[in-house]
Amino acid sequence: MPREARIRIICTSLCHSDITYWKMQELPAIFPRILGHEAIGVVESVGEDVTEITKGDIVIPIFIADCEECIDCKSTKSNLCSNFPFKISPWMLRYANTTRFTDLNGEIIHHFMFASSFSEYTVVDIANLLKIDPTIPPNRACLLSCGVSTGVGAAWKTANVEAGSTVAIFGLGCIGLAVAEGARLCGATRIIGVDIRPEKFDIGKKFGVTDFINSGECGNKSVSQIIIEMTGGGADYCFECVGMASLVHEAYASCRKGWGKTIVLGVDKPESMLSLNCNGVLVQGKTLMGSLYGGLKPKSDVPILLKRYMDKELKLDEFVTHEVEFKDINKAFDLLVKGECLRCVIWMDK
Amino acid sequence: MPREARIRIICTSLCHSDITYWKMQELPAIFPRILGHEAIGVVESVGEDVTEITKGDIVIPIFIADCEECIDCKSTKSNLCSNFPFKISPWMLRYANTTRFTDLNGEIIHHFMFASSFSEYTVVDIANLLKIDPTIPPNRACLLSCGVSTGVGAAWKTANVEAGSTVAIFGLGCIGLAVAEGARLCGATRIIGVDIRPEKFDIGKKFGVTDFINSGECGNKSVSQIIIEMTGGGADYCFECVGMASLVHEAYASCRKGWGKTIVLGVDKPESMLSLNCNGVLVQGKTLMGSLYGGLKPKSDVPILLKRYMDKELKLDEFVTHEVEFKDINKAFDLLVKGECLRCVIWMDK
Repeated sequence: MPREARIRIICTSLCHSDITYWKMQELPAIFPRILGHEAIGVVESVGEDVTEITKGDIVIPIFIADCEECIDCKSTKSNLCSNFPFKISPWMLRYANTTRFTDLNGEIIHHFMFASSFSEYTVVDIANLLKIDPTIPPNRACLLSCGVSTGVGAAWKTANVEAGSTVAIFGLGCIGLAVAEGARLCGATRIIGVDIRPEKFDIGKKFGVTDFINSGECGNKSVSQIIIEMTGGGADYCFECVGMASLVHEAYASCRKGWGKTIVLGVDKPESMLSLNCNGVLVQGKTLMGSLYGGLKPKSDVPILLKRYMDKELKLDEFVTHEVEFKDINKAFDLLVKGECLRCVIWMDK
Repeated sequence: MPREARIRIICTSLCHSDITYWKMQELPAIFPRILGHEAIGVVESVGEDVTEITKGDIVIPIFIADCEECIDCKSTKSNLCSNFPFKISPWMLRYANTTRFTDLNGEIIHHFMFASSFSEYTVVDIANLLKIDPTIPPNRACLLSCGVSTGVGAAWKTANVEAGSTVAIFGLGCIGLAVAEGARLCGATRIIGVDIRPEKFDIGKKFGVTDFINSGECGNKSVSQIIIEMTGGGADYCFECVGMASLVHEAYASCRKGWGKTIVLGVDKPESMLSLNCNGVLVQGKTLMGSLYGGLKPKSDVPILLKRYMDKELKLDEFVTHEVEFKDINKAFDLLVKGECLRCVIWMDK
């Protein structure tokens, strides 16, 4: 169809959102569906009115659109395209109620996050595709489709972490570690990781985590009390990367009066409500922010991150803890469900 | 006492916080107490170690301290002094459990917001005093002690309103109108006032309000729906100036995805909780902020506002709707309780 491209997937990596929608029983979950959204591929063919990319180009799908035309895409302040708002998207981007997959009986198979990369071939809208330098290793570039970008972007674009500042990160999964990496790149001098698994500290050190709080061993103190004591008043930036509304409150309590920012990255259930004490908000001069995809603009910010990787500034290698062939994709699910990997890259042709 | 000054009050104006603590029956209300905190006076005498001001200087009290020495006071990002945190303060600033007032029987009378300006004479800490140009009319300068500064500062310092932007203000009392004035000075091109009293629109026009929504006549639409329709997606900045936790939710819903900021100025009961939908925070790229005294630094930002008044840029005259003699102070209370005035200046010697 016009403005679409058919992509042969080279490799894809597994993200927690794939697991969430694999396990989910009710809408917005929908079946049958092809999951997968962190990936890299080669363009096989393009539809009408596609001039930006051509057959043979190397591309990564990105779940938020960048139409480059609407007020948001033209603004430096927003990454939330108005022409094509983000949805969990059982359909194609610009053609409602259509899919590009059918089973052998001709029944439709739904898309996922405008990518559906757990497939040898997929069809993706131009607004969701970024053409990249083909010399970048594919098992690194694919990480920027979602998780690593979200974390690095949250530190860089959403929070705009200042050099010399103190950062606290709640949850040292892939996203939390990517926040640490982003904060490290921004020049944060102290990065406090909070997690219930002590082995996360050694992993965190690779990404710049300088201090660790085991949230299961705080005794009769709260995590926020410990952070306030460690930092003499609270962290400059706190990131909630777990997806628990109650942790947002703790992160907010951990950030410093006067200028502290709390950034919400974790995704709780849609119906969850976030509660904050009114006077806390009022008198403390604190800020609460959230973003999608770390506030990154797909077509202008992601190329900067890819260049920083090639310049050996941004760490990506360390996120890839496992690699498997496509026939072993269930092993990738097992590893991530058990929390035993950061990113498992799944190769199509290996 | 050292670092204090005795002030003869020239005039004082009545702020809603005076009424709140006059009506309040329980702690932090305390009796007997001398209320009043928006004021101007002349220094009668100073204690030891006071070099900043001297007898005869014209000063205004400001309820948040600016010690000029702590990490916050030295930072451009915070206005919340760490040496002397804000309290409703039944006592003097740096001498706990002491007051400078007694009744004829020698019983103590409590202070209020480190000012207690409903008095011919008062004693104020140097950290709460700003020396000002004596040529500024006293019945204008006194407004900057609290309410007008809080509103103008919220637009200027807390939100940092950009030129050309759209602003929505919930509640057109003195604070809300001061937000409008601040937004106007920052170059906002559209300023939407929301109030339940239609007469507020004409008043608002003086301070740059361009559009009015009567929140009592929205039919079956919510205020946020109307604002989103009027602005094609939401206001760039929303200010809650009423002090209702539920209105914060409406203000937050009214601000634009991608870059919208909601600033909380109203003071609800301390125990009130603010609830926000988790996914709203997460995916919309919105920011929630609060501040005290509009984020203004008393000793560096307020002189800028006073200069802008003298340069005929900042409007102050229009806030003074009534002036009375001190013997008629109860009339000022009546007017403000009934919502019939913005600011009533109370003269000591007139």
